[in-house]
Amino acid sequence: MFMDKLIEKIMEKNNPIVVGLDPQTYLIPQCIIDQYSKEEEPMGEIFWQFNKAVIDAIGQRVPAVKLQIAFYEQWGIEGLKAYQKTIRYAEEKGLMVIGDIKRGDVFSTAQAYASAHLKGPFECHAVTVNPFMGRDSIEPFLSLCKSKEKGIFALVKTSNPSSGEIQNLVADHKPIYRHLAQRVEKWGQDTLGKYGYSAVGAVVAATYPKEAKELREEMPNTFFLVPGYGAQGGRAEDIIHSFDDRGLGAIVNSSRGILGAYMQHKGKEVTLEEFQQSVITATEKMKKELLQALKENNKYQVYTEEEHQKI
Amino acid sequence: MFMDKLIEKIMEKNNPIVVGLDPQTYLIPQCIIDQYSKEEEPMGEIFWQFNKAVIDAIGQRVPAVKLQIAFYEQWGIEGLKAYQKTIRYAEEKGLMVIGDIKRGDVFSTAQAYASAHLKGPFECHAVTVNPFMGRDSIEPFLSLCKSKEKGIFALVKTSNPSSGEIQNLVADHKPIYRHLAQRVEKWGQDTLGKYGYSAVGAVVAATYPKEAKELREEMPNTFFLVPGYGAQGGRAEDIIHSFDDRGLGAIVNSSRGILGAYMQHKGKEVTLEEFQQSVITATEKMKKELLQALKENNKYQVYTEEEHQKI
Repeated sequence: MFMDKLIEKIMEKNNPIVVGLDPQTYLIPQCIIDQYSKEEEPMGEIFWQFNKAVIDAIGQRVPAVKLQIAFYEQWGIEGLKAYQKTIRYAEEKGLMVIGDIKRGDVFSTAQAYASAHLKGPFECHAVTVNPFMGRDSIEPFLSLCKSKEKGIFALVKTSNPSSGEIQNLVADHKPIYRHLAQRVEKWGQDTLGKYGYSAVGAVVAATYPKEAKELREEMPNTFFLVPGYGAQGGRAEDIIHSFDDRGLGAIVNSSRGILGAYMQHKGKEVTLEEFQQSVITATEKMKKELLQALKENNKYQVYTEEEHQKI
Repeated sequence: MFMDKLIEKIMEKNNPIVVGLDPQTYLIPQCIIDQYSKEEEPMGEIFWQFNKAVIDAIGQRVPAVKLQIAFYEQWGIEGLKAYQKTIRYAEEKGLMVIGDIKRGDVFSTAQAYASAHLKGPFECHAVTVNPFMGRDSIEPFLSLCKSKEKGIFALVKTSNPSSGEIQNLVADHKPIYRHLAQRVEKWGQDTLGKYGYSAVGAVVAATYPKEAKELREEMPNTFFLVPGYGAQGGRAEDIIHSFDDRGLGAIVNSSRGILGAYMQHKGKEVTLEEFQQSVITATEKMKKELLQALKENNKYQVYTEEEHQKI
């Protein structure tokens, strides 16, 4: 069951972080660009080598990676080959892999998307979905959650500045994000795992802490994927309400904050080793922030004291 | 300007139909499967030959084609190569090409999607977008509508059975689809073309005629892309309110209804020519239904009488 496996990886690594493998070109160290820019499919090769360097650096330290497919799609076929290759490599390294695809469409189309991303050419352990079209657009993904132990995270409250335009409109005394929350909680009902979370998670942003607190109460059996930490403005104290009393219930994503940390010190001219060290340092720093906030709020049960002393 | 060009193609062909190039495997005649199943990338080649046969049959008769990317994504790299090849071929044949991608994400991610689908490797004339995340998720697409004369169609009321779950919730005395409508109408404001329609269109389903009527009034400057005709249950009289008094304002999609018409008579065993003839016949039949309904409702101004006599 996907969510159980994700939770066990989080406990094994003592770390509720998912690293976003979003190879925007400005984030890529010059040494990688120089070395691979003469390949036949240069952007594909550069993306793949960049991702491999990141996975080799933090593969033992984090439970999961998330790939934003848009940054691969932007480079067409070669980008999508790098997407595929990265998924396979991350999986080989024992990481849980989340495809950030935010697809959502009518049933027969959703079947094609679910097939593409949960069992076919771009198979991940879990994907994000857009629930705007209602249950039948999610149904094919739900089927694979059950038959192939996959997971989904449905958008409920997104991290962007204009997310409230639709999501915060109030219908029947409740904002739309709470209407979505009730549906998402229900969609997962018959897939509850041993930690009390279903295979149907929710995307709940770090940038809206008030909403996140409401949503944690509204969705006790729904695991949260939390975007918006760091670069987008979310802080450790903002995401604390997304966790349950054990310190479970959420996995926090950082992409630019981890991948681009090296640029603050050295600019684009780093060695591969310096880049990887910077990725490790940024991940450890974020882990420390999160675990400290969890500890201060008595939500530290599943994390080891020993681990906490080390950081 | 995209919407002007689309409208002029509609008037040139006397036909407000967009054919959906959705190569679901069950729709593909056995003769195409047999001929290309030994290629190195068989599904890619089969999809491409299928689409080429359809475009060769109806390229002179319709203004536009719409490609549902999910059915290509399902087959991975080879599927997406067929997607690219089909876009280029349709464009060469003078058709307007709409990528049905329904993407929607935070600004930086939306930039990558807009780049992929309105100027990069998968460049179309227009794409569908999901507006659930609000204006900043649409902004990068809007920029390309202006700088590269592209178009978008934002989901407002979708054709699927559960579309009402979120879209029909009532906030401030108005259903969500009308809140979306007001935003979409506004997003297009500074791109009005000579026929009174902006570069920002809306997806408004044939399967919800009451809502479509409200939406036509709410969005006088927004062109509609109308899914759900035929196979999904929408009829000519259901879509009549989506048109303005001239007979403009909407383009009606059919995919399965046109591509799969041959199966009702002959099953999968047809010659390529029989398949193409069936595609033509189904397209002409649908055109006749639409033009007759438009004529009966005095919305026939832009279509020629001569053309109507012929059908």
